[in-house]
Amino acid sequence: MNRTVWLKPDNSQIVQVIDQRYLPHEVIIRDLATWQDVEVAIKDMIVRGAPLIGATAAYGVYLACLEAQKSEQPEKILELAFARLRESRPTAVNLFWALDRMKATLSEVTDLPTKTTLALNTAHAIVEEDVEVCRLIGVHGLPIVQAISERKKGEVVNILTHCNAGRLGCIEWGTATSPIYQAHKLGIPVHVWVDETRPRNQGASLTAWELSQAGIPHTVIVDNAGGHLMQHGFVDMVIVGTDRTTRTGDVANKIGTYLKALAAKDNNIPFYVALPSTTLDWTIRDGLTEIPIEERSQNEVKYIMGKAQDGSMQTVLLTPENSPASNYGFDVTPARLITGLVTERGVCEASEKGLLGLFPEKKL
Amino acid sequence: MNRTVWLKPDNSQIVQVIDQRYLPHEVIIRDLATWQDVEVAIKDMIVRGAPLIGATAAYGVYLACLEAQKSEQPEKILELAFARLRESRPTAVNLFWALDRMKATLSEVTDLPTKTTLALNTAHAIVEEDVEVCRLIGVHGLPIVQAISERKKGEVVNILTHCNAGRLGCIEWGTATSPIYQAHKLGIPVHVWVDETRPRNQGASLTAWELSQAGIPHTVIVDNAGGHLMQHGFVDMVIVGTDRTTRTGDVANKIGTYLKALAAKDNNIPFYVALPSTTLDWTIRDGLTEIPIEERSQNEVKYIMGKAQDGSMQTVLLTPENSPASNYGFDVTPARLITGLVTERGVCEASEKGLLGLFPEKKL
Repeated sequence: MNRTVWLKPDNSQIVQVIDQRYLPHEVIIRDLATWQDVEVAIKDMIVRGAPLIGATAAYGVYLACLEAQKSEQPEKILELAFARLRESRPTAVNLFWALDRMKATLSEVTDLPTKTTLALNTAHAIVEEDVEVCRLIGVHGLPIVQAISERKKGEVVNILTHCNAGRLGCIEWGTATSPIYQAHKLGIPVHVWVDETRPRNQGASLTAWELSQAGIPHTVIVDNAGGHLMQHGFVDMVIVGTDRTTRTGDVANKIGTYLKALAAKDNNIPFYVALPSTTLDWTIRDGLTEIPIEERSQNEVKYIMGKAQDGSMQTVLLTPENSPASNYGFDVTPARLITGLVTERGVCEASEKGLLGLFPEKKL
Repeated sequence: MNRTVWLKPDNSQIVQVIDQRYLPHEVIIRDLATWQDVEVAIKDMIVRGAPLIGATAAYGVYLACLEAQKSEQPEKILELAFARLRESRPTAVNLFWALDRMKATLSEVTDLPTKTTLALNTAHAIVEEDVEVCRLIGVHGLPIVQAISERKKGEVVNILTHCNAGRLGCIEWGTATSPIYQAHKLGIPVHVWVDETRPRNQGASLTAWELSQAGIPHTVIVDNAGGHLMQHGFVDMVIVGTDRTTRTGDVANKIGTYLKALAAKDNNIPFYVALPSTTLDWTIRDGLTEIPIEERSQNEVKYIMGKAQDGSMQTVLLTPENSPASNYGFDVTPARLITGLVTERGVCEASEKGLLGLFPEKKL
């Protein structure tokens, strides 16, 4: 499986990423040759998804070290790079975490060549750790898919997912997609219902593209369709990602997740959330009142981009020019609607008790 | 309020309609001068919405009578017109009902000029009856809005609706929108959350346009957003239309309605369905198993039309070229999730008992 960020094969001083703004219509690989290129890549959403943003920023620090080596004011360059990379996306927790880790590591040594080597190794380590966490989420989620497959006597397991909690937001495997990729690898027949996920359509553009690249059978549906499919037995399980999960198992994820959780509950369909433990926020207990929900530009609702007949990318208006639109980015799915949380340490009930069973070090 | 089908002011032998395919971006009035024009208008969805299709077809019969008067084989023309108009949309119950009514009426007389006058009068009657039914739905739904307004001490009443159950599908008032229009007319402050309603976006294009024409405050939202808005107290009531309602109060409506009903239930928000009694199907009891759900072209999901920057209408691709899509047109909301049915005879519980209270003549 290809990764989402890597060093250029013939030049280890250049970082490469897929320009995700053009997916699924074009696969454009971008060279990031300077830390400023990395800054732009994060700011302009050439790369997106918390783990990928963090990893790309880490490589940005490595590129800054390379530039510092050629400079007479190396410290100034590093300082500027750290500051500017930190400001490249306002709310990306992984970004801050990765930069803090890089800074702490670099502060351990003084000479620049060693700093540079350390920066590269730490960026690599961040990448490998994410890959391993995602792989383990798949290892723990796989038995859920296997059990359904056995119950259905090998018939296709139909899995619904919302948004993109796939490898494109991570390095490899993804979170919600990891059990799916692993089941597919084992030859378990799976089929994925891909919610298009308005307004930014990460499902229709990213998840569908990922799955088609991996040869996994899938069907794109509008966000309105999941309830009907569940009512008629066309969905065996739901699995989604999360941006933030409370100590009590409430899950903030892409807007619309809550509606699918309600429908799953109403039809006795298991609803799982896949998460690396880094997205657990142990400081809060009530997702509905304590997680602030980002409001984004109304133009994401009013306009949409796609591929026109002449092959160009076009943005078109969908609403009356003067009708306002509102655009909340996330909603909160209460723990009571969630069958289980799939983490790198195993699967648990969506509750404080369940989470503390896997993460006993978090007991107060 | 303007109507959606009418005779041309200076020429009563021409029918006029709004070409709804270009809404909300352009308001194009089409002249329908022959029954063949009417056939095309229905087939190409220049007009849509069951009551409007029925009424337009009725005027088509009137236009066929005009043509027959000039022909040597008038019966042949009328026969052909009836047959072709009947085939212009496959599943439109109102279309068949309107044509049957026109046929029965015309069969009462033999001379063509009288047939023509009868056809025109009957088409007018069909229109006026629809206007009156929709007006009455508003009269009966209005107290629901008024009660919320009083409880909120005159603060804005926030009403969420899905798809277009508005005047554009009818002649005037609409069904779900009728109580909203009437409340607005009385000066009760209302605000409408307009679900965009993928894949065909009737909310973003038609409902938003209607409401902006009427000066009613509204906000377009993606279909994913309603649950979040309800969780946070931003929705006071939901009201939608229906394509078919069972004897027991199960409601088939645009795909996604069921998800909103689940969210309303989960948040104790009243969920109403507005319906003319003609959409009641007294022969069936279980919506989920007995109402067949139309599957439409996957291209409605994969492609979307909007207004490009140069002002032209453009269709763009949203998914990977080769990813399949599925497109169910409707879903069924079980009666247990519905607070009440708003009909032209009054509001009742969504149950056989409730419906028979308003329609005692339907007792078995």
